[in-house]
Amino acid sequence: MRIVVALGGNALLKRGEPLTVANQRANVKIAASALAPLARDHELIISHGNGPQVGLLALQGAAYKPDEAFPLDVLGAETEGMIGYVIERELRNLLPERKEVATLLTMIEVDASDPAFESPSKFVGPIYSRDEAERLAAQKGWSVKADGKDWRRVVPSPAPRRILELEPIRWVLDRGAVVICAGGGGIPTQRTGTGALQGIEAVIDKDFASELLARELGADLFVMATDVDGVYTDWGKSSQRRILEASPDALNAYEFPAGSMGPKVTAASSFARQTGARAAIGALKDIEAIVAGAAGTIVSKSIHGISEVSE
Amino acid sequence: MRIVVALGGNALLKRGEPLTVANQRANVKIAASALAPLARDHELIISHGNGPQVGLLALQGAAYKPDEAFPLDVLGAETEGMIGYVIERELRNLLPERKEVATLLTMIEVDASDPAFESPSKFVGPIYSRDEAERLAAQKGWSVKADGKDWRRVVPSPAPRRILELEPIRWVLDRGAVVICAGGGGIPTQRTGTGALQGIEAVIDKDFASELLARELGADLFVMATDVDGVYTDWGKSSQRRILEASPDALNAYEFPAGSMGPKVTAASSFARQTGARAAIGALKDIEAIVAGAAGTIVSKSIHGISEVSE
Repeated sequence: MRIVVALGGNALLKRGEPLTVANQRANVKIAASALAPLARDHELIISHGNGPQVGLLALQGAAYKPDEAFPLDVLGAETEGMIGYVIERELRNLLPERKEVATLLTMIEVDASDPAFESPSKFVGPIYSRDEAERLAAQKGWSVKADGKDWRRVVPSPAPRRILELEPIRWVLDRGAVVICAGGGGIPTQRTGTGALQGIEAVIDKDFASELLARELGADLFVMATDVDGVYTDWGKSSQRRILEASPDALNAYEFPAGSMGPKVTAASSFARQTGARAAIGALKDIEAIVAGAAGTIVSKSIHGISEVSE
Repeated sequence: MRIVVALGGNALLKRGEPLTVANQRANVKIAASALAPLARDHELIISHGNGPQVGLLALQGAAYKPDEAFPLDVLGAETEGMIGYVIERELRNLLPERKEVATLLTMIEVDASDPAFESPSKFVGPIYSRDEAERLAAQKGWSVKADGKDWRRVVPSPAPRRILELEPIRWVLDRGAVVICAGGGGIPTQRTGTGALQGIEAVIDKDFASELLARELGADLFVMATDVDGVYTDWGKSSQRRILEASPDALNAYEFPAGSMGPKVTAASSFARQTGARAAIGALKDIEAIVAGAAGTIVSKSIHGISEVSE
């Protein structure tokens, strides 16, 4: 099988854990141990989040020269290098030497007319007081919004339209390598009026970017791996039940939290609907069982309705 | 022809110019304009330096949390992402859409027994007073040395032994893409006693790494592109003369400055001697003429002695 696995931020850094080099390495080692068995039996493509890493690099830049902060495309490129390196190294340490692993820098183009540019919605960077946020907004031309009782910068989160390095990714995959790509939703770019590519201050949702990647690569299975063992109805209530499997249409009847499970369910449904292949959402530690269809939440057009289990 | 071009730090940022995103983009645009014509007629592999960029990222990290500085392997990976992205984007803007460009993250393995580990020699990071340097050395386990009247950290600069992603690089190149790789001399790694790859606090000379890359890829030409139009004898004196062409043996009779032209001459001689193909050192703006054999300093076994010109 050809399998795209999107590693969530929580699969690379435990919730609440500080982002240090040692913590990142320890978590990536655990992720690589879960993924290495798949690489032996399947064609494997790995994408990953970069939220905490971009946040840290932005803080480092601001601490040094607040007025020369790197834009989000450049920070995204830095994290594709940093995270890709650690994943590739740890995978190489677990795989036979003849098994190649390659990390490809990935730019993703979005439409300049995407409605997301009219209503920035993705929180990035540190928290501020309302006064400080409004001062920064005026000074730097940022959009800012309340995030609970704190204020933060928000940037547009446009839909991914085109993965620029798709052909090289396909070539390397076809030759049998594990490919690491599309980290952090890809480096966000758009075309200027003259057709030139330019980097933009935006964040492409990594689940949507990974879904496009899985679709364009003709993946047989698209897995979003996180630290939760599946999608739940009534999440957090005593009535919560894990969805074992569902059709895209049946999932449509439910609402899921916009910040976390919502985009994953949308991406899984989109992939299943457009390709006829399976999507899955579940815990990274269960990845082998998920691939076998025995864990996580499976989404497929061939499933009728929805089946749940209380746990 | 298959051509490896190693872009020197001074080809990506003018001497003395501050490293801002805008300056980096402007300089990379100039570099891409020089390189794009080559990509149309030849197989092109681009490597690059990362000195100013690693320096800046280290300063950013130290400004935020001095005690949680990222090690040089992680910083190197970040710069491969950042610089590779900007080069790839500007090249894509100049090449026909059907011409693919791919940036591959590159780890390079060194020998744990390399004598460089006994005598760290490569200056990295900011300048300090002697007292401050010695305090940091004691605190962080650094080696420090006088650099003129200032003091700086020094790290080992071991010889590159193995490019881990050589096969994927070759596959992408064979399919016709321009490949950007081995930035900053590659991410420095070595094997532990158990054979596991680990990142190390070292800097591999980017000219030596590029020479290994050119040799392993069977390049017909290996160019080190900088801001000087060739190798000079008596550099800086009234008697200075540019070397038009030389055999590796004839170059051996001269000494060149260790910090700048020395490694380039060593790398050019090594490539020419071991492969029988041509190496060249010259100005990036002259790259087309260099490829045609009409500019820069050419090093080849088929040349007898040395020919110079006063300019």
